[in-house]
Amino acid sequence: MLALRVDKKRLAVKDVEKPADADDALVRVVLSGICNTDLEIARGYAGFNGTIGHEFVGVIEETGQRVVGEINAGCGKCDLCRAGDARHCAARTVLGIHGRDGAHAEFLQLPAINLLPVPDNVPDEHAVFTEPLAAACGILERVKITDTDQVAVIGDGKLGLLCAQVVALTGAATLLIGKHAAKLRIAERRGIVTTSPKLAAGQKRRFDIVVEASGSPTGFGLALELLRPRGQLVLKSTFHGKTELDAAPIVVDEISIVGSRCGRFGPALDLLKKKAIDVDSLISEEYPLAKGVHAMRRAATKGVLKVLLRP
Amino acid sequence: MLALRVDKKRLAVKDVEKPADADDALVRVVLSGICNTDLEIARGYAGFNGTIGHEFVGVIEETGQRVVGEINAGCGKCDLCRAGDARHCAARTVLGIHGRDGAHAEFLQLPAINLLPVPDNVPDEHAVFTEPLAAACGILERVKITDTDQVAVIGDGKLGLLCAQVVALTGAATLLIGKHAAKLRIAERRGIVTTSPKLAAGQKRRFDIVVEASGSPTGFGLALELLRPRGQLVLKSTFHGKTELDAAPIVVDEISIVGSRCGRFGPALDLLKKKAIDVDSLISEEYPLAKGVHAMRRAATKGVLKVLLRP
Repeated sequence: MLALRVDKKRLAVKDVEKPADADDALVRVVLSGICNTDLEIARGYAGFNGTIGHEFVGVIEETGQRVVGEINAGCGKCDLCRAGDARHCAARTVLGIHGRDGAHAEFLQLPAINLLPVPDNVPDEHAVFTEPLAAACGILERVKITDTDQVAVIGDGKLGLLCAQVVALTGAATLLIGKHAAKLRIAERRGIVTTSPKLAAGQKRRFDIVVEASGSPTGFGLALELLRPRGQLVLKSTFHGKTELDAAPIVVDEISIVGSRCGRFGPALDLLKKKAIDVDSLISEEYPLAKGVHAMRRAATKGVLKVLLRP
Repeated sequence: MLALRVDKKRLAVKDVEKPADADDALVRVVLSGICNTDLEIARGYAGFNGTIGHEFVGVIEETGQRVVGEINAGCGKCDLCRAGDARHCAARTVLGIHGRDGAHAEFLQLPAINLLPVPDNVPDEHAVFTEPLAAACGILERVKITDTDQVAVIGDGKLGLLCAQVVALTGAATLLIGKHAAKLRIAERRGIVTTSPKLAAGQKRRFDIVVEASGSPTGFGLALELLRPRGQLVLKSTFHGKTELDAAPIVVDEISIVGSRCGRFGPALDLLKKKAIDVDSLISEEYPLAKGVHAMRRAATKGVLKVLLRP
């Protein structure tokens, strides 16, 4: 079968054997989405070699059931796994990221427990957003947001646009901060106020919660400036490399910095079923899997949002 | 009157005028304590020029009432101040730190609302620890600690020893990590388990909460290593300068970094009244205020804990 693979920072579509682990379900991939993490992995992040991709919708080969899949596969034995949440299992593999081949392929494998049926009214082009939308919903697992909060989301990329929409659904006054007018317009159409980083800098110490989804150190610095004392900074994406941290303002203003990674799929599927989130506007381009290398280049291009691959 | 003052990083005991602001209460200082923040200010931190010192016990000149005083003096008009908590008032002055002369002097002034009577059974030598003990108690305002938690405190200085004792009172399994056997022994006498940073590094990903009270970037790095996924790092002291922050582990392990500065005096006075905290062992030396410059040098000396000044 075809698979988009990274081998020592080299990216290529290769013909590889169909996965065949008897313990896991076999899923025929219908559509997969390129995430910024895929681009990072291709640059060497996480030291992963293998088939990349962790956003997908597919069909269980044996039953024909259309599914999406939580990407953390746990050991099944530790306390965390037995409590039904493998996201922090120390022995986990992660689809297309750590120890497990991923979704930019004709077939993938995941434990059956990871697979969730897709509601009939959710088309494939929406279902493929379940994973990043769950990541956005994961913010609400980490901080409490109410309709009296002032929240800023930094970054108008794919993740920032999903985060802003999820935050706005809480009723909180939501400001999306980004540099790209066309991307900001997607949020504006959902009634979200937007602004540029330059103008946002005039609103210092005003926000209860700031979600950093730009993945840049300057976004991190701006986030700290925007927060009120005792405010909470949700780190939703990692930066490229390291940034300088001055602990003094964090201590003096008693800021909390809260890391947030994967969310559960249930809440995300609910939102997609209710058509509560605009994901259509996030789709920029679609390519056949065979053109995966080109698709990755396109996904890294300024102005391009989600790029989909169809095996 | 005599006062220990910083002027453009120059430290000196000077003869200055007695403070005389009609809005504030006049307090005759009985005993003041040198904090690491004083040492930092003398090096230029916070850009403060004036009388330093913010830990004291004194007597209200007009009434003879023995008091300690919360160090943040608010505007009295903003929402925070009207809710009775000036600690984050944007217009606040802070005793001996920001916009207000401090406690290493014969007299100081604070708003009457900041002053709390000292229980009769608390001697001056204990009452002078109210401010740093309140700062340690402030941890419990910022994170919830229960008797099922595993907590590590990094740093066996004055603040770390107070933090470890406060944390241990919650019933949580508490480990104090430090490099100085004599200091660690103070905690051990209270039943707290201690270890070195080197040995602690063998206990990675084991702690629910880590309190960073060493004020060093290496302490910060160790804290991140010791935390379990979704653990909380309480930043209790600032570092000297900046440190490098790698956001990836914070996001991947969903760590929270929680800044903590000043605590309320009520809980600290309660603990002192109950003799629940060993502060006697933290007193290293006492000098007359006139020897303030020498006392500051002593406070900066390795192995020395609290140095007190008596006007």
